[in-house]
This record gives sequence, C-alpha cells and structure tokens, in this order.
Amino acid sequence: MDRLPGFRDFYPEPLPHPDVWSADARQYIFDKWRAMARRYGFREYDGPPLEPLELFTTKSGEEIVGQLYNFTDKGERQIALRPEMTPTLARMIAAHERNYKKPIKWFAIPQLFRYERQQKGRLREHFQFNADIFGESDVAADAELIALLIDTLRSFGLSSNDFVIRLSSRNAWEEFFNQRCKDSARAYEFYQIIDKLEREQPPQSEEKLAKLDFSFDEVESFIETGQPTAELAAILNNLKARGLSDFVKIDYHVIRGLAYYTGAVFEAFDKKGDFRAIAGGGRYNNLVKLISGGKVDLPALGFGLGDVVLLELLKARGLLPQFDAAPDAFCLIEDETLRGESLKFIQDLRLAGCAVEYSLTPAKPDKQFKRAQELKAAFTVKVERNATGETCAKVKNLQTREEKSLPFTEAPLMLIARKK
Amino acid sequence: MDRLPGFRDFYPEPLPHPDVWSADARQYIFDKWRAMARRYGFREYDGPPLEPLELFTTKSGEEIVGQLYNFTDKGERQIALRPEMTPTLARMIAAHERNYKKPIKWFAIPQLFRYERQQKGRLREHFQFNADIFGESDVAADAELIALLIDTLRSFGLSSNDFVIRLSSRNAWEEFFNQRCKDSARAYEFYQIIDKLEREQPPQSEEKLAKLDFSFDEVESFIETGQPTAELAAILNNLKARGLSDFVKIDYHVIRGLAYYTGAVFEAFDKKGDFRAIAGGGRYNNLVKLISGGKVDLPALGFGLGDVVLLELLKARGLLPQFDAAPDAFCLIEDETLRGESLKFIQDLRLAGCAVEYSLTPAKPDKQFKRAQELKAAFTVKVERNATGETCAKVKNLQTREEKSLPFTEAPLMLIARKK
Repeated sequence: MDRLPGFRDFYPEPLPHPDVWSADARQYIFDKWRAMARRYGFREYDGPPLEPLELFTTKSGEEIVGQLYNFTDKGERQIALRPEMTPTLARMIAAHERNYKKPIKWFAIPQLFRYERQQKGRLREHFQFNADIFGESDVAADAELIALLIDTLRSFGLSSNDFVIRLSSRNAWEEFFNQRCKDSARAYEFYQIIDKLEREQPPQSEEKLAKLDFSFDEVESFIETGQPTAELAAILNNLKARGLSDFVKIDYHVIRGLAYYTGAVFEAFDKKGDFRAIAGGGRYNNLVKLISGGKVDLPALGFGLGDVVLLELLKARGLLPQFDAAPDAFCLIEDETLRGESLKFIQDLRLAGCAVEYSLTPAKPDKQFKRAQELKAAFTVKVERNATGETCAKVKNLQTREEKSLPFTEAPLMLIARKK
Repeated sequence: MDRLPGFRDFYPEPLPHPDVWSADARQYIFDKWRAMARRYGFREYDGPPLEPLELFTTKSGEEIVGQLYNFTDKGERQIALRPEMTPTLARMIAAHERNYKKPIKWFAIPQLFRYERQQKGRLREHFQFNADIFGESDVAADAELIALLIDTLRSFGLSSNDFVIRLSSRNAWEEFFNQRCKDSARAYEFYQIIDKLEREQPPQSEEKLAKLDFSFDEVESFIETGQPTAELAAILNNLKARGLSDFVKIDYHVIRGLAYYTGAVFEAFDKKGDFRAIAGGGRYNNLVKLISGGKVDLPALGFGLGDVVLLELLKARGLLPQFDAAPDAFCLIEDETLRGESLKFIQDLRLAGCAVEYSLTPAKPDKQFKRAQELKAAFTVKVERNATGETCAKVKNLQTREEKSLPFTEAPLMLIARKK
C-alpha cells in the first residue's frame, strides 16, 4: 500500500531512497524560520488545516477554485484543505483583533494543499513560513517585513550573491491600468497577464494584452523605465538604513497573482534563475474588511516562504548541514552484571539533558563500539567496578580518544560542557 | 465566517477569548516532547495527514470506521484524514526498514482527525506525540519506551503524585480468553468489553460478558488477583533499575481498544482520576507484516500522548508557565533624526541573536517605554549622540533599572549574556 500521489513521507537521515524527504532537513528549516520570526518580535499562531470552502472561493479570486483540494464532508459541508494561510489569518484577526495591541506581528508554519490536474512529481502539499503585520499602514511595516524575509534567508547561509527581493507596487500597476482602461472589472485579468509575462512567450502575452487594448510595448516600457513610487522609495530607504540594500531591487515584473493585494508587492528569487520564486508577499489592506463582512478594517501585509524551493536551493548551493543522530553519549554495557547500574547511569545522564544511546540487549563490546561510531556519538560512557567493588564512570571522547574515570555525578557535567 | 466545528484556532498569549487555544502552550508542549525524544535517541519522521482509506479500515479493526474523517477526492479516491499515526508509520517502515539499523527508534508529532456524531465541544482533531521502536522483541524495548513516556511527563513538572502508568498484557488476556473460549473470532469482542469495564455500569458489562459465556466475577477476580506475567515482571525490573518504580503499576483493567496489540500494553492516568487517559500504547508485533502484505515482519511497539488531556492536566496542576513575547530588548527611538542609526542598531542586535522590538512609526517616548514594559522586554536600548557628535548605545535593565552607555559592538554581548 502506497501513500497518495503528491504527498510526502519524511524520513530520518541518511535517507533510504531518493523518493522520500528528510524529516531532519524539514525540522532544520522550521527551527530557523521560528528563530528569526521571534528575533523580529513575531508571535506564533495557527488555524485548522480544514476550512469552509467559501472562506477561499469568495475571497481569493476565482483562479483558486480549480486548484483547491476540496470535498464534501459527512455533514454535507463544503470543505477545503487550506491552500494558503492568509484567509484563515484574516478570519482570526477579524474575530479577536481588539484584544491585541497594534501593530500585530504574527507568524505561522502551516501545511498547505492544492489539487490540480495530476502532473508527475507535482506536489499537492507543502509547508510555508507565513509572517504578517496588521494595523500599520506606514511603509515602515513593509520594510520590517521584507527585512525579516531577507534575514530569514540569510540565516541559512544564503547571501546577496544567491538571492534578491524584487520589489514592485500593485498601486503603480493599478494607476497604469486606470490611465488606459476605464473598465476596472478587467483589472484583475490584466494583472494575471503581467504576472505570467516572464513565463509565457511574448506573442502569447501580446495577444492577451491586445484583447484588453493594451500594447505589449507600453507594458514592457513601463517595466523597464518605471521609477520607484514614493512608497517604494521609502521602503528602499528604510532597508538601506539597515544595511540591506544589496538584497533588494525594484522590478515591475512582479505583481503577485492573487486578487487581494493592494500596495507594495515583492518576490524573492535566486540570482541564477534556476528556481521558481522562493517567497512572495505584499500589502492586502482590504482583506480583513472583506472576510469580516465589513466589521473590522485593518491595514495588513505579509509574505509566504515555502519549504520546497528553499530546500532545493539550499541543496544546490551546498548549504544544508549533515544531519546525524549524533547523541552526546553511547553507553557501553560490556559486563552484563552491571546492566542495572548502567540503566541508572543512562537515566541520570538523560535527566541532566544529555542524549544517550545504548544497546537494548546484550551485544559484543566491539559491536557496541562500532554502533557508537556509526551514530557519531561524541563520547562513549561505561560503568566500571574497581577492585574494591566500587563503581565509577569511564568517559571517552571519540574524537580525541581521551579517556577519563569520573565519579557518576561529574559525567553529565562533562557531556553538557561539550554541547556549549 | 467561523471555523469548522471541532477545530481549533491557536492564538498568541494572552488569549483573547476562552474559546480559543494557546499557540504558545502548544509550542511549549511540542518542544518538550521533541527534546525528550532526542535524549532517548529517537529520530523524527512524518507522513501525510491524508492517506488512502483502506490503510485504516482494513488494518485497525472495524471500530474505527464510524469515527473516521473520510471523504471522496476529486480523483474518486477514498481518502481519510489520519485518525492515528501507527498505520502510516508501519507503511513507511515496511517500505524502507532495510536501510535502517535495528532497533529503529522514531517519533513524530502528527495532527490526528476523527469525525464522530457531533457532540458539543468535542474536538475533531488533536496533536499527538508518537514514539515507536521496531526490530526488538526483547522487553528491554518495552521498558525503554515506557521510561521515555515517564520522563516526558516528568519534564513538564509532573511527579509520581500526579500520574501513574498502568501496565497490563494483551497476552495475559488472550490466555485468559483461550482457556475459556475456543472461538478466537470472538476475542476482539471480548477485549472491547474489558476495555470499557471501568466506564460502564457492572450490570451492562455482566450482560455483555454473559453473551460470550464469561462470568463477570471471574473477569473481576482475574483483574484483582492477576500476577505479572514473566514479561511484565521483566519490564518492572528494568524500570526499577532506572529508579522509576514509583511511576508504574500492574493493572489488568488496561487492555487497549485497538485490534492490533499483541503484548504488553499500558496507559498513563492522572492519579486523581479527573481526566481520561493521558497516553496509551503497547506491542503490536503483527502490524508491519499485515500492512506490508507479508513482505516485512518486524516486532514493534509504541505509544501516543495527546496534547488536549495533557494541557488540561498541566493547567489543573498549575504547571503551565506564563507565556510572554518577552523580547531581549525594546529599542526606544526618541530622536527621530536617529531612526536610521536605530534601525541599523536593531539589525545588528537581531543578527547577533537577540529578539528586538521597537515602534515602527514615531511615538512619544513615554508611550514607547510603556510598550516595552507591556511586552516584558528585558532591556530597553537606545541610540544616543553625545556632545562631540558620536553615537553610542544606552542599555537599561528593566528589572534592576541599571543603565549603561556602551559602544554598539558590546550591546549584543550584554543582551546575549542575559539569556544564559
């Protein structure tokens, strides 16, 4: 029996098969996301992986419907596995924002789902780092959010040689559109064409634009010569003060596919152009009002950073560390009459905070030692009885081969000291 | 628009409403689970939250069907949201066990789902700490697993006054059954009655047992006078060597509801009896063979520890810490001409590992200071320019009120030192 197509199994390293994913790498990524969010003062939240279908269909633009992993539940409800976190977050904020001081800075690490027509190898779920700010309309919030994204990517060892944030403005595009077309109902269609500009052949885009009475040339010219809006200039200035100018550039190719963006928008790309966008986000000042049925009106902005492209990029740039069990100690039990004492010693070491492995059942000393080496244990430890019948702990550093006899109480200290 | 019935929203503390859950408490619990699993040498894995329905219906006993959160997907597949982790794990182990040295010690923190008839306030999802061992039939593995469960609960501050592991044996019950009934097809029905013995009225159990030709008295007498099997005695001895005797007792009331258990079984209960079982597990030596269609045969055992009862228990015993944002520093920007320098200083502090908050937009000094106090920041920091035009960092400890002027480079060191 196999897992469902498009879903992933996460195994401990070393990985048994190219078809499975690393649980260690996943946790490594989550830990870095969480750590940087906290340094920036973001607080964690989460919502249900399942939501009423209408939370997504009525709020996120019609393009999302065909991609949703939706179904009818046993109670005849229309359900969707969340394809993105923002509608859930907007719902949660609308319900209880009054109890939180503004600006609200929150993050989450949800698993997200989609169900497109089957393509071989195409995933139907991924994890995403979501960070959002509510209640601040000043561009200082946009800069803070983009700085968080930059520093998150840097925390994996990625530099300004590896990635860049392409900064753009939905406002600038809206103005461009309104100057040339009075039918605002078609704006969304226009944004979709711009969003796909780099992925489609020029004649194809040209044809689509012509249907809306736009010329391909005027669009291209706007992208090439467009100046930063006052808003974007202020964001760039703020990032410059932080010393982050090298990580960001204006690029009007970016417009973001979803319907709800309202201001500055941005995407992170690898500089070699080997991968799809690493992350994307922007302002969505109207969404909370929309989701709350007009009851709550809060400016908002956020980004999403997925685990799949990031992992590919880190692999390609050689930035993933090696993941081992690497316990602090492996306890050798060479004398079975000392198994009871050894179990007590293991217990004490673990309660002191050390990760300890040992052979559950009697095994030859050389086999135990080999296992300690395979696991990349830092130390072997052993209970020994001396001539007068007293027991003590023998501790060996497997790197330096240095060996010491210690009273039991000192062994945990020695192992913990090593972790610093 | 509201969330689906039976699902939870997790908010940052302080909680805005009694109807929502604490994301901080959830992460606190997950961190403790993960830390103790690693100390015991368990490696993390995960599988998809969705699996083919038949993985559960054909393997876990028929009692699970009516409780499953199942549906038909867009590709006409029969799908279930996982109600437990063990079948997924058995599937993953069966696929790749050859690549891992035995015993395999793995853990996961999955979200699990069920869909029973609606009861007010009844949850349809929860999170569970799952730890399992494969490839070791010796009871040393049972003891190791139970010790992990005990130490996990202890890591929250729970003591032997708060909880006990009730240890039993599916084998002992199987022998009891076989001595009295030759129709092994009815064994599972019998186990179900034993499993519900403590929750049902005696006459009800008596009637059910009579239908299988068992007397209530002989069952009660077995529970009251039943001696530890050799297997259970060995587990108790092992736990005694670790100094954990106070946390475990033999109790034949425990039998575990699921069909697949084969040996020692156990449940953790709070001693006051205020809550449902905190955790449960046992041996399931035949499940991998069953799931793999006979291809892989590995002895196995594991437990599940849910987040909901544990959280209720910790709350009731006053063992939950207070959760605050509590940044290392709040940066006061009292002179707006120094905002640029302040942003750079904040950036440096964050890159050095400090959690730093500040006011995104200009605000009165007293308002900024009040916010720093509300957030329970450890320090306020401030960029100041002296008479000669040089800038330096002013750092104030909000507990001791001690204040110092420092060169920029020393401020991060001071804040980090505080975290130790």
